[in-house]
Amino acid sequence: MSEHANAPELAQLRHAAKAWFEQLRDRICRAFEALEDGFAGPDQATLAPGRFVLRPWSREGGGGGVMGLMHGRVFEKVGVNVSTVWGTFSPEFAKQIPGAEHSPSFWASGISLVAHPRSPHVPPVHMNTRHIQTSKAWFGGGADLNPITPDAADIEAFHARLKHACDGFDAAHYPRFKAWADEYFFLPHRGEHRGVGGIFYDYLEGDLDRHFAFTRAVGEAFLDIYPQIVRRHMDRPWTAADRAHQLERRGRYVEFNLLYDRGTQFGLRTGGNTEAILMSLPPVVTWS
Amino acid sequence: MSEHANAPELAQLRHAAKAWFEQLRDRICRAFEALEDGFAGPDQATLAPGRFVLRPWSREGGGGGVMGLMHGRVFEKVGVNVSTVWGTFSPEFAKQIPGAEHSPSFWASGISLVAHPRSPHVPPVHMNTRHIQTSKAWFGGGADLNPITPDAADIEAFHARLKHACDGFDAAHYPRFKAWADEYFFLPHRGEHRGVGGIFYDYLEGDLDRHFAFTRAVGEAFLDIYPQIVRRHMDRPWTAADRAHQLERRGRYVEFNLLYDRGTQFGLRTGGNTEAILMSLPPVVTWS
Repeated sequence: MSEHANAPELAQLRHAAKAWFEQLRDRICRAFEALEDGFAGPDQATLAPGRFVLRPWSREGGGGGVMGLMHGRVFEKVGVNVSTVWGTFSPEFAKQIPGAEHSPSFWASGISLVAHPRSPHVPPVHMNTRHIQTSKAWFGGGADLNPITPDAADIEAFHARLKHACDGFDAAHYPRFKAWADEYFFLPHRGEHRGVGGIFYDYLEGDLDRHFAFTRAVGEAFLDIYPQIVRRHMDRPWTAADRAHQLERRGRYVEFNLLYDRGTQFGLRTGGNTEAILMSLPPVVTWS
Repeated sequence: MSEHANAPELAQLRHAAKAWFEQLRDRICRAFEALEDGFAGPDQATLAPGRFVLRPWSREGGGGGVMGLMHGRVFEKVGVNVSTVWGTFSPEFAKQIPGAEHSPSFWASGISLVAHPRSPHVPPVHMNTRHIQTSKAWFGGGADLNPITPDAADIEAFHARLKHACDGFDAAHYPRFKAWADEYFFLPHRGEHRGVGGIFYDYLEGDLDRHFAFTRAVGEAFLDIYPQIVRRHMDRPWTAADRAHQLERRGRYVEFNLLYDRGTQFGLRTGGNTEAILMSLPPVVTWS
């Protein structure tokens, strides 16, 4: 961990970041459960509104987290995890992490959410933000939308809201972080993007208070815009062909997460909780 | 490719290996279609016997292959690919391949089969054998059984038939290649094996005629034993709970192939045919 790990400001930041991620999680759970309550779409009468189930877990080596999982009528499966872990990177892995080359100690906290709606009209979404301290300290995160059948209004609203969050901090943030998302959420073997993008940022060092504020703004933007997008589409009926297309597209999500996703690799290589890490995988998938 | 690539015996071996993989493929297709015809299990009357559809493809850079795919009533999805490709490895990838460190040219031919039966009682199976020439030349391959609910008689018969094939060549083959399969077909993040094993072998250099004969014996063993195992179980009814368990277990197959499988990595990094490579993925999968 940081040579200055005992510096009061870094210790304070660890405490505050963890508290924020947990608070954001609680607000997201309430918002998503409200969507479940308000649902008036297909099979509304026969399906019960979903509720998150939270399960704590401990990590051998330091820390742990809480897995939140809901199976509902709007959300076929949505996982939201907050984990706060610390310890020592393996020598091989330490080489890939800024500030861990010579001192493999780390502390990391973050929130990670992946939603797979039941309706093929409601876009799946991913959001993750994190704070990491090694001999360096930084914030990172992002959010991206993964519609089955892209809707221009959704895409515009999603990007506009993230841009608004970015612009409050630095006019260079949005173009840079949008391009980073376009580069990151890409499947080379398919020659296609995973979804319609969003933002991706990492290694925001320096003015940590400001980067923390930006990270909170990203969380607020997500919590504001995504439920609006869900509400626009959740009650619309769909066809068997829509559903078949959805299940096939979900395969791309699996391919990205297992072949390329940095967070998945980070988690599996640092002895994270496999169940929590792979909670991102869709509930039902086809590869015809 | 080999400095001796023009040596008649190496050119002859390339020709003979390719011809063998194609012949084995044709025999497997006939045997699997006969299983489809003989099926008398659940929904027998309403499902048509499956037939393989073969589709050729070309590889930019040299060679190509034929994808064989069947959706049937015994086999929910079975893919069998024969590909014969040549060209130049990327510098990064060449480092990982014996004999390609200084001369990145290669020639490779192989057969790869993955079967996902409809019935949870019929074990999925994987079989792959290959011949590769760089500045070195070798044979490799293997087969492993992936039952949803392991059956002691199946496991014994499968291993015994592979042992018989091995023992005709070298008493050390079977214990070595069985141990290699146990080591290879393992998911560290789950702390569990992918299935019940089989054999895995690679880099068999030296007496290539003998290793080719062994590779043919592995193909014959697979073609002999797997249809027997299928026939034992294919007509038995199953419950919705059996099916749910099957779909969940198939997730482990996906995790292995995308996170760890050497053939998948080889294919995706050498500009192979993505559709052919990912034909191994199950038709329907759940991660609850």
